Amino acid sequence: MGRIEILDTTLRDGAQGEGVVFSREDKIKIIRALDALGVDYIEAGNPASNPKDRSLFAFAGQKLSLNHAKLTAFGSTCRAGHRAEEDEGLQALAQSGAGVVSLFGKASLFHVEQVLRCSPQENLRIIEESVAFLRDRGLEVFFDGEHFFDGYSQDPDYAMATLQAACRAGASRVVLCDTNGGGLPRRIGQVTAQVVAALDTPVAIHCHNDAGLATACTLEAVLAGATQVQGTINGYGERCGNANLCQVIPGLHFKLHMPCLPEEKLERLTRTARLISEIANLSMDEHSPYVGRSAFAHKGGMHIDGMLKTTSAFEHVPPESVGNRRRYVISEMAGRGALLTRLSQLNPALHKDSQQTIAIMEMLKDLEAQGYSFENAEGSLILRVLGAMEERKHFFEVQDFHVFSRKPEDDKNAQAYVKVSVDGQVEITADEGNGPVNALDLALRKALTRFYPSLSRMRLKDFKVRVVSGSGTASAVRVNIESTDGQNVWSTVGVSANVIEASFIALTDSIDYMLLGGAAAQFSGK
Amino acid sequence: MGRIEILDTTLRDGAQGEGVVFSREDKIKIIRALDALGVDYIEAGNPASNPKDRSLFAFAGQKLSLNHAKLTAFGSTCRAGHRAEEDEGLQALAQSGAGVVSLFGKASLFHVEQVLRCSPQENLRIIEESVAFLRDRGLEVFFDGEHFFDGYSQDPDYAMATLQAACRAGASRVVLCDTNGGGLPRRIGQVTAQVVAALDTPVAIHCHNDAGLATACTLEAVLAGATQVQGTINGYGERCGNANLCQVIPGLHFKLHMPCLPEEKLERLTRTARLISEIANLSMDEHSPYVGRSAFAHKGGMHIDGMLKTTSAFEHVPPESVGNRRRYVISEMAGRGALLTRLSQLNPALHKDSQQTIAIMEMLKDLEAQGYSFENAEGSLILRVLGAMEERKHFFEVQDFHVFSRKPEDDKNAQAYVKVSVDGQVEITADEGNGPVNALDLALRKALTRFYPSLSRMRLKDFKVRVVSGSGTASAVRVNIESTDGQNVWSTVGVSANVIEASFIALTDSIDYMLLGGAAAQFSGK
Repeated sequence: MGRIEILDTTLRDGAQGEGVVFSREDKIKIIRALDALGVDYIEAGNPASNPKDRSLFAFAGQKLSLNHAKLTAFGSTCRAGHRAEEDEGLQALAQSGAGVVSLFGKASLFHVEQVLRCSPQENLRIIEESVAFLRDRGLEVFFDGEHFFDGYSQDPDYAMATLQAACRAGASRVVLCDTNGGGLPRRIGQVTAQVVAALDTPVAIHCHNDAGLATACTLEAVLAGATQVQGTINGYGERCGNANLCQVIPGLHFKLHMPCLPEEKLERLTRTARLISEIANLSMDEHSPYVGRSAFAHKGGMHIDGMLKTTSAFEHVPPESVGNRRRYVISEMAGRGALLTRLSQLNPALHKDSQQTIAIMEMLKDLEAQGYSFENAEGSLILRVLGAMEERKHFFEVQDFHVFSRKPEDDKNAQAYVKVSVDGQVEITADEGNGPVNALDLALRKALTRFYPSLSRMRLKDFKVRVVSGSGTASAVRVNIESTDGQNVWSTVGVSANVIEASFIALTDSIDYMLLGGAAAQFSGK
Repeated sequence: MGRIEILDTTLRDGAQGEGVVFSREDKIKIIRALDALGVDYIEAGNPASNPKDRSLFAFAGQKLSLNHAKLTAFGSTCRAGHRAEEDEGLQALAQSGAGVVSLFGKASLFHVEQVLRCSPQENLRIIEESVAFLRDRGLEVFFDGEHFFDGYSQDPDYAMATLQAACRAGASRVVLCDTNGGGLPRRIGQVTAQVVAALDTPVAIHCHNDAGLATACTLEAVLAGATQVQGTINGYGERCGNANLCQVIPGLHFKLHMPCLPEEKLERLTRTARLISEIANLSMDEHSPYVGRSAFAHKGGMHIDGMLKTTSAFEHVPPESVGNRRRYVISEMAGRGALLTRLSQLNPALHKDSQQTIAIMEMLKDLEAQGYSFENAEGSLILRVLGAMEERKHFFEVQDFHVFSRKPEDDKNAQAYVKVSVDGQVEITADEGNGPVNALDLALRKALTRFYPSLSRMRLKDFKVRVVSGSGTASAVRVNIESTDGQNVWSTVGVSANVIEASFIALTDSIDYMLLGGAAAQFSGK
């Protein structure tokens, strides 16, 4: 048996999750990250039903060159009572530019009768004809048997017949879906083994987490002979989500000893999970297996010496193998490996053991303990590192600001007064906005545009607030800002117990970073 | 075989989770909620090592009368080279007032040699002698075999010998711990079956979720003969947490058909999970199986008629069976059952089908769609319901307020101006504080104390901010405030895109609720 294949459906089934919304640009960033991780297939959307996804596949066909992954479109069989040739959805799939299509159809007799409301035979016809239509146009087809496991419990022969119809028409994978997510691992394994024994076509497993068992069910299906696993990063998906690839991939690797990513890619897992959570603006579950910040966090009280001797006895896998790190909750002894690479990219003089590197590490550790995260705030990270090296240029000083908020009656309910100086020249001005942060942003850039006219092109693209400490009254607030000058995009971060101050830090970092030319440089490869 | 027993360790192993901090008062609230849920044992802390827990057990012995659960203390065997009689920890356990003790010892030869650093025989002696010491003093003892599964893989005979030592001394349960959380369900099941076959003492299972498999491992152990399951509400616990009882309990009930809670208690599961997350001030994972807000959320586009005919085909269990509800993400058709009981408690005239009830339901549905949650804001809920019934008394009107924040240099960096009126009399005043919310709170109460002197006793006890919507720039902020007058405690909530406005709503609700006498009434049973 070859390597187990991974099909990532973060962008399709994951986007069904409540609160998950991806723009086309978000999707492109995520496709690049998934390709770099080394997944085999990226199910990116439904070009037949969704214009945004149609435009994504068109863009991908022209501009996206992927190293490893194959972009996969998702769609449905033709409707009952209609010929495949006349189906607009299938035509859109054939013309989408995707080389692979995940085509879903009903595998449960109950659903055929109650939801589709056609004859069992008609359902088999539309499956076979739809797969054949796409195969005839040169596409590879994976057949998704919706409600397969529930259907198999009700009528195993009919459920198998739906898969066989797809295989006859040339489907290259049959996908066994536990659509309602209620399956038990033992049962999923038993049924999968029966399908694997009955068919020559490779079998894929697609589980949902409604009973908290999706990872276990997926691993059991692989033990039973499934050779493709489907899931999403961070387990995003409708209701309780899909099988979480951040658990399934290391589970295959460490627990079943069946590696599924290309060599040395597993260590990208943590950063991929975090990047995608930032793009989705969903809080990372910090207790997530393998990739959460707490996943390898040990409480204090334990002798660090003893720990260093016997880490293998306290950890089921080495944290660095998935790109995570060991942490000691009380002493916050941050691992240094992860950041060193970044630092030496910024300045080749920063060696592992140089005094400056150690000082920078200490500074970043302190900032993280305050609640900073630089995952999606490259601008602030670079400014802080330049500051520690005494190479940061300060383009302006904010001598004072005052923000006035009043009982909101319209969207001009806040005013900000600012006093800035640049090379000894002072500018005092004010502006108004919706809420204190909006007003402060507008006033700051208004004052500084006199000195730096390029700032007139700058605007806020996104503004995210997150409470970062868990309990008590002294909760810190982390503000992430994404800014643009119309061409480039950069992001910065600020943390404080006071939301105004946290925003102020992120705003001034953002302006500094633009004036430094950092945003332009990151794209010119400097 | 009788009912499967539940041991909840939210307050002990759950409190090891990063970000989880419980005060003694928090613990008492949680003990009451767990007892009402119907768990059998509540492992509430370590009275031997922790003065807060010692005081908790002392309080519990005198004041807490539990209906069903037995309070359980946690502690360690005596140290190697020492007699049990001389061990202060064991003495503290014996005197704690708890009738049951979970006593942990090493079950892995590797850990005995590398961490404990004593002879294998000495470890068996301290286990046997420590269990006997507590048994002799009339306590029931559960023996927790730390690192049992890893120990069994390394040296099964020795791991078994540790359990046998505990049984000889009279332990009434042996607890098989997958301390590092790396076990596979199949393996956990196989080893558990071997222990069950070898011992007469009932076997308990204690899993951690480092591989995302804790629920599956726990269920496999039960299938293999374990009769007690251990875990925490919401899966709180060190690193990736413990087995999540909010998955294990319904898993036992629905998937293995082994009910473990007393009759009709399962429907308390969702509210218990949410209450404990509010007490811990940890965001609920809304995609949690069974108890998350999204767990039974169906996306729109589906015919509601069809859905109503075939819900069983789209849901693995009925949401109301665990006290949750079905939701339609687009149309937000909130279920009414959950809140009706609450409403009829507030006003017996509010029948299920009365026009007023329907109007209140609509109002609450709108508020929830805006990001409100009344889980831990009973004060605001009561005020809103009174408002809808046109029975709310307004004690004051805030005609205007202005908040001034400046660049922070000290902890008096914000000023608030307020103008309030009470029965036509106007009071204008101001105050200063650390950040805009603190200043606004102080100024408001200062102005109103002239009219309502009792407000001088009121102060904020806790202030929590949480971002509630997932994506985009228009994130709403939910502010929860807990207030006290020195005797009573009440909580209120406000939501807005503007943190100042959200705080303002929660603050004014809090003052109104105190003036209404609501806080005092809830304890006098009115």
